[in-house]
Amino acid sequence: MFGRLTLIGIGLIGGSIARVARRDGLAGEIVVSTRRQETLDRAAELGLGDRYTTDMAAAVEGADCVIVSVPVGASEAVAQAIGPHLKPGAIVSDVGSVKADVVRQMAPHLPAHAHFVPAHPVAGTEHSGPDAGFAELFHNRWCILTPPPGTDPAAVEHLAAFWRATGSKVETMTPEHHDMVLAITSHIPHLIAYNIVGTAAHLEQVTASEVIKFSAGGFRDFTRIAASDPTMWRDVFLHNKEAVIEMLGRFIEDLFALQRAVRFSDGDALFELFTKTRAIRRGIIDVGQDTAAPDFGRASAGGPAEILAKG
Amino acid sequence: MFGRLTLIGIGLIGGSIARVARRDGLAGEIVVSTRRQETLDRAAELGLGDRYTTDMAAAVEGADCVIVSVPVGASEAVAQAIGPHLKPGAIVSDVGSVKADVVRQMAPHLPAHAHFVPAHPVAGTEHSGPDAGFAELFHNRWCILTPPPGTDPAAVEHLAAFWRATGSKVETMTPEHHDMVLAITSHIPHLIAYNIVGTAAHLEQVTASEVIKFSAGGFRDFTRIAASDPTMWRDVFLHNKEAVIEMLGRFIEDLFALQRAVRFSDGDALFELFTKTRAIRRGIIDVGQDTAAPDFGRASAGGPAEILAKG
Ligand SMILES: NC(=O)c1ccc[n+]([C@@H]2O[C@H](COP(=O)([O-])OP(=O)(O)OC[C@H]3O[C@@H](n4cnc5c(N)ncnc54)[C@H](OP(=O)(O)O)[C@@H]3O)[C@@H](O)[C@H]2O)c1
Ligand SMILES: NC(=O)c1ccc[n+]([C@@H]2O[C@H](COP(=O)([O-])OP(=O)(O)OC[C@H]3O[C@@H](n4cnc5c(N)ncnc54)[C@H](OP(=O)(O)O)[C@@H]3O)[C@@H](O)[C@H]2O)c1
Repeated sequence: MFGRLTLIGIGLIGGSIARVARRDGLAGEIVVSTRRQETLDRAAELGLGDRYTTDMAAAVEGADCVIVSVPVGASEAVAQAIGPHLKPGAIVSDVGSVKADVVRQMAPHLPAHAHFVPAHPVAGTEHSGPDAGFAELFHNRWCILTPPPGTDPAAVEHLAAFWRATGSKVETMTPEHHDMVLAITSHIPHLIAYNIVGTAAHLEQVTASEVIKFSAGGFRDFTRIAASDPTMWRDVFLHNKEAVIEMLGRFIEDLFALQRAVRFSDGDALFELFTKTRAIRRGIIDVGQDTAAPDFGRASAGGPAEILAKG
Repeated sequence: MFGRLTLIGIGLIGGSIARVARRDGLAGEIVVSTRRQETLDRAAELGLGDRYTTDMAAAVEGADCVIVSVPVGASEAVAQAIGPHLKPGAIVSDVGSVKADVVRQMAPHLPAHAHFVPAHPVAGTEHSGPDAGFAELFHNRWCILTPPPGTDPAAVEHLAAFWRATGSKVETMTPEHHDMVLAITSHIPHLIAYNIVGTAAHLEQVTASEVIKFSAGGFRDFTRIAASDPTMWRDVFLHNKEAVIEMLGRFIEDLFALQRAVRFSDGDALFELFTKTRAIRRGIIDVGQDTAAPDFGRASAGGPAEILAKG
């Protein structure tokens, strides 16, 4: 698929790309680069690449494809470091959860002779670091490409083929539309999960120990989401501010209507909303983005935990 | 544990009590009663009891313990129907997710010669009906008892022993405190899950099909919660209005502070909140109310789905 693939950043996402590329022979050679020596050493122990260096400029020399998998706030510095060292025809991509701002950060620093094809694999877990990655992460998930107008179609297709080879389905849209879609499907869910866990931690009437003990009633699921990496998520909210604030406005408006229905005991309004939301759930199960099995906090042997342990 | 156990309502909770009582011999005889003949027939097919009747009054005759597992809004009618037929010394309990209001509904209709010990097993899934129940549901979960002042301690201990025999841990508190604890750990999480799924379904900028396709970014988990039974949840909000509105006020206040941090790019405030919330998550894993395994929508064979299939 690619002769030399360079991965900048080797956490959950970079580490998962490395594993699937290795397992399925998607690259002749995998070069791994990351900021800290400690993380690089761990990647080497896990055998994620063929060569390892903290020198990003050296890492991209001769690469056919470079995929940057770092928190979105670090995108510009990485682009600056690697831009001058990209070979003609190299494809440069990223995996950031935000797209318009990442394009603004990276594009100015990339040479005209490289092809910039921003991407976002819509797949993840609440864990991070090189140990958290696994080859199956992208299987049956969507990867969204947001190539700027005028990008070489062959380069876009080349990267799309790579993502399809990881098991992903590929869709193309504008960075702005991506940011709006992800604001509602990912960023706002994380924001409200972080928020309710924060609220619960600071109540006078209910102790933190009670919140923990009785979390099986629903709260528990929010804490899993709210255990996601603070750096990654800080950067998402700082760099997708407009779309997040717009969608949050909608959420709050609807929440006030719901609060009013509770206050005035409008059982019909509650019942109608609670019935409608089931259709969306069915849609998600029908397209295979979740299973109908109930999750009640007891992952069994053979599940994702095992996959993780196998690395 | 009990000579004759009568279950009024045989859905997820009643059906799970029936299965664990049968499996572990917690009752000499299990009498099953429910509103609709159709549900009763299904319970009989599943072999959940020893006798079956839609006549609730007849069902409770001679029962040592009666457990009512119906939507909380139906509690008063059930208490009215069964009250005159309870034998002296019978223990009457329920499993409602709301306690103060259920006590208000049921207590006036129960005879002085019966012992009323309200209960709430804090365990569940998003599924409902007799097929959804399983014997392991209560294992390692908390069951909260809220006996009115003056209740016979022996009756409370008898019911507590029954719940411990199902695998539950038992705690006692006032109905009012229960309702506050559950508002934050269960009712508000459900309310905001229903709300965001509703918001997502009505956007102009993002289609429902996009919401479904790209749900793996976090939204998916909310849809699971928002697929819970509409009748049960309508009743919870109608009957725990005060505590829900109080906790929702706190949630909204905190959400506005968070919105402000996003608007003014206060990365430190975001990072601080996102770091703190991890401590609560660790607490939940430490006490065994969830596992650290990442959930990414791929329940594997041998997991809860299998348990369910086995009934
Ligand atoms: N997690 C998800 O669910 C998910 C899903 C889709 C997309 N994404 C996107 O994928 C990207 C990476 O996320 P991840 O989950 O893989 O994160 P991760 O597991 O925390 O790994 C982050 C990687 O980026 C490096 N890094 C961190 N800060 C850096 C900086 N200031 N400059 C240079 N490198 C830095 C880290 O290097 P050192 O360890 O060497 O410091 C590490 O290799 C993010 O842009 C995120 O938005 C995440
Ligand atoms: N689901 C959870 O996660 C969970 C957890 C803890 C506690 N609870 C509480 O447990 C109780 C039952 O919930 P569930 O999940 O077991 O519900 P479910 O699966 O929907 O079963 C409800 C049962 O109640 C009966 N019922 C419904 N409406 C009734 C009415 N108006 N009058 C008399 N009977 C009626 C149904 O009878 P027919 O089918 O014959 O109509 C059925 O047997 C609720 O109070 C809920 O708050 C639920």
